[in-house]
Amino acid sequence: MDVQQRFGERLATLRKEKGWSQEKLALESEIARSYLGGVERGQRNISLINICKLAKTLGVTTSELMDF
Amino acid sequence: MDVQQRFGERLATLRKEKGWSQEKLALESEIARSYLGGVERGQRNISLINICKLAKTLGVTTSELMDF
Repeated sequence: MDVQQRFGERLATLRKEKGWSQEKLALESEIARSYLGGVERGQRNISLINICKLAKTLGVTTSELMDF
Repeated sequence: MDVQQRFGERLATLRKEKGWSQEKLALESEIARSYLGGVERGQRNISLINICKLAKTLGVTTSELMDF
């Protein structure tokens, strides 16, 4: 599995642990839902700023989000 | 300090701990030296793939590199 897929799985796991839908995460993080879907499917090479935005939104450290 | 600056500082710290120059890290990671300079100065919004490449090259986990 490549790093994009591993990150996507990690993101989906943390999102589901909060009981959030992709729509909810998109709304809270101000990142487009369609883009988030691509990230979770491992199809996006997400940037540092968006990684940090998602970590903050999910209430985890960037290091925890990147623990895959 | 924004996340790009914080990441840049973290990268430079880990690189110097290995006693490497930016040239050495560029060579080993196959990432352009000029780009790395911009990342360390906090001027680049680096991508997931390059973050993971740098972590692997420095011999740390992605989570450790993103611990800032």
